[in-house]
Amino acid sequence: MHLLVIGGSDAGISTALRARELDPSVDVTVVVADAYPNFSICGIPYFFSREVQPWQSLAHRTHADLEATGMRLRLDTLATGIDVGGRRLTVRDAAGDESAIAYDELMVGTGASPSTAGIAGLDELGPADGVHLLHSMGDTFALERYLDQHQPESAIIVGAGYVGLEMAEALTVRGLRVAQLQRGPEVLSTLDPELGALVHDELDRHGVDVVTDTRVESVGRVDGALTVSGSQNGEPFSRSAELVLVVVGVRPNTSLLTEAGASVGAGGAVVVDETMRTGLPNVWAAGDGVVTHHRLLGVTYLPLGTTSHKQGRVAGENAIGGDARFAGSLGTQVVKVFDVVAARTGLRDHEALAAGLQPHSGTAIADDHKRYYPGATPISIRITGDTGDGRLLGAQLVGTRGAEISKRVDTYATALHHGMTVEAMSDLDLSYTPPLGSPWDAVQVATQAWTRDLRATRVPA
Amino acid sequence: MHLLVIGGSDAGISTALRARELDPSVDVTVVVADAYPNFSICGIPYFFSREVQPWQSLAHRTHADLEATGMRLRLDTLATGIDVGGRRLTVRDAAGDESAIAYDELMVGTGASPSTAGIAGLDELGPADGVHLLHSMGDTFALERYLDQHQPESAIIVGAGYVGLEMAEALTVRGLRVAQLQRGPEVLSTLDPELGALVHDELDRHGVDVVTDTRVESVGRVDGALTVSGSQNGEPFSRSAELVLVVVGVRPNTSLLTEAGASVGAGGAVVVDETMRTGLPNVWAAGDGVVTHHRLLGVTYLPLGTTSHKQGRVAGENAIGGDARFAGSLGTQVVKVFDVVAARTGLRDHEALAAGLQPHSGTAIADDHKRYYPGATPISIRITGDTGDGRLLGAQLVGTRGAEISKRVDTYATALHHGMTVEAMSDLDLSYTPPLGSPWDAVQVATQAWTRDLRATRVPA
Repeated sequence: MHLLVIGGSDAGISTALRARELDPSVDVTVVVADAYPNFSICGIPYFFSREVQPWQSLAHRTHADLEATGMRLRLDTLATGIDVGGRRLTVRDAAGDESAIAYDELMVGTGASPSTAGIAGLDELGPADGVHLLHSMGDTFALERYLDQHQPESAIIVGAGYVGLEMAEALTVRGLRVAQLQRGPEVLSTLDPELGALVHDELDRHGVDVVTDTRVESVGRVDGALTVSGSQNGEPFSRSAELVLVVVGVRPNTSLLTEAGASVGAGGAVVVDETMRTGLPNVWAAGDGVVTHHRLLGVTYLPLGTTSHKQGRVAGENAIGGDARFAGSLGTQVVKVFDVVAARTGLRDHEALAAGLQPHSGTAIADDHKRYYPGATPISIRITGDTGDGRLLGAQLVGTRGAEISKRVDTYATALHHGMTVEAMSDLDLSYTPPLGSPWDAVQVATQAWTRDLRATRVPA
Repeated sequence: MHLLVIGGSDAGISTALRARELDPSVDVTVVVADAYPNFSICGIPYFFSREVQPWQSLAHRTHADLEATGMRLRLDTLATGIDVGGRRLTVRDAAGDESAIAYDELMVGTGASPSTAGIAGLDELGPADGVHLLHSMGDTFALERYLDQHQPESAIIVGAGYVGLEMAEALTVRGLRVAQLQRGPEVLSTLDPELGALVHDELDRHGVDVVTDTRVESVGRVDGALTVSGSQNGEPFSRSAELVLVVVGVRPNTSLLTEAGASVGAGGAVVVDETMRTGLPNVWAAGDGVVTHHRLLGVTYLPLGTTSHKQGRVAGENAIGGDARFAGSLGTQVVKVFDVVAARTGLRDHEALAAGLQPHSGTAIADDHKRYYPGATPISIRITGDTGDGRLLGAQLVGTRGAEISKRVDTYATALHHGMTVEAMSDLDLSYTPPLGSPWDAVQVATQAWTRDLRATRVPA
């Protein structure tokens, strides 16, 4: 039994590890387009901030660790075509030579590529010019080389999502003046603006020049300087810097599978079911290239590393004859920006409305631990719940680093997983000690406030 | 409608707050034996460490805050007898005068008293002699007075549970040489010894002289010094110091209710059902004086502040005509000892065995966040699961402060609340960013290790 895996990132490696874990007799080969299997792409900003050095530390596992599990790695090898009927994968090596690899089962984890959001000029200007995307170790080396060689003093970051914010921190720490351009009215558009504003404040405090409501249309070189142009609230806008980094999301890499006959669905990603079957015989897929089964939304596209790990693990189990199912995403996410941490899980008001639910959202502020004990800080927690059945639909949290935001969102994620009502959150037996919490944890203070809030809007005065 | 509440601690105040929140027309009176309603007893050690000053800060709410909710407080008033048929409570005020208070519904939250574990000499020697118990604000003032007036340089703490450990830290921080005597083989006997040992190490690092396997039989004064005597591994043992603090647990205060006809059950606590009914008409009870409904063990006695809050809230809702039920405890607990945090929820192996289950327990060590990012520390996580149906039964965690132990135990507690299997924990969509977690959070690394471990013990080599 030969399980062939395409892709050396989260989904692919998770598939390979799971198959080898469950059945060490299975032959597993992983075809990796570059020389960097199992690297932590999420860690790249910390390489630029120099908190992580050398770059090799970013590997979740070393090449040797991976081979010790019994999987075979074929690096610098590009998958070029799938012969579904013949169960053969055509690949091209670094020298340009094509060959074919026979398989019994194939798992495709080709991931996603950075989006360019239709910005003109990104075809002409590249890393050598100081215009960068950031998604792979190759991109990482190119940006680091540019920073080393040109020592730019200013940067424009287009985008204020997770990577954009982390890179704003990293480049600021590194001494650059950073302008951060965001299309919407507030940074971190995955949170409601009132919570995103707290992250914005933190960027302000650290000197990042945040420019919102700005649509970037092109990047060019004007009088030697890199210039980003577009519009801001309908007015022309332009800004120059010595470095431009465009981080505006990703689009799924699907061509290998679609050319083999797979279908695309939500977000242009390849359709799979919860078992990670593509519908093509003996072909599985997982990761940022496939649709996401969401526990509250059904099928959507929501690429996240944690999801890729889970999907890959399911694919690995099933490809060798198992019967695992991806239980579904809740879109749980967290980001640290300087000394602030922002997290979310589940749905926000408008997402719930779009899904046909009747949500109510309310924000409470609760101390991370008893206020009398030194170092207590407020956490802003926005709860979304269903006004019909009272179900918890989502939670957003922003607070200081050290306020255990990332694990508090996990309590909400676990509650969401089980379809708890907002009110029933008070039944949870959560831990308490004054330096780390309250008898009703902040998690419960917020859900109790939501319930009171809803009651107040319903009972006539 | 007059709701009368006995007890100004967690259960009593929670009852009063809940009743007033749900129906502001209800008349609520709280009879408080001392002058310190709604004080955070869990915070007392931080008063001694001087992290919390002045002592008034330990109030969850001030007297004025409480009265602003519309409840009436009768301080320094001891409840002496319940006339169940006549719905009258006899009380004695500070001047010694008796009177009666009529009620429609009565909630008794008289809590617990410190145990003396049969140690001789505690009747003769008291705070003025340097021999202290620690449970109330009165005890707190007495100990503080002794420390101020006598400036002792050495202390013996009998007991190494939560309060004992926190006081070992507090007195050490305050400059005393502390010896901590523990009856069992390891400190913090609510954790398995291999995890308790990590807390022991932390005490050692900070100069606390931990003496285990020591049964204390008496406290006396020998040649002017306070001397604790007993046996250690069957040999005679004695140790002297200038201060002795006995913190060996609590026993429920039940006389008021039993004299009125209530029954006692587990741990000698008053029997209540999940609605907090005592069985006596119009008499409710909650808190450290009543039995604890446990989600895994049924009815037991497990006094915790978080539980008192929940039970009190249920009693408050039901006493005014509601239909709430206490959903049950999981015994979730956490303690900070110097720079280490230890937590648990659910059952340990021997507790599960005693409950007729077929447990397996295994310990994994997982980093709190990606190791490549600065400051990663290992968390020891011991999972207990059922070998029959695979259900999660409990988790114990020890790690450094800052490793988000207290909220990680909450994820397990939430999973336990829903009867998840250990294996299904991998389905949880937990948050991830390299500075705060891993793609599989430590919570899941431990459950996956448990599953592997169990598989390895079952599959013949």
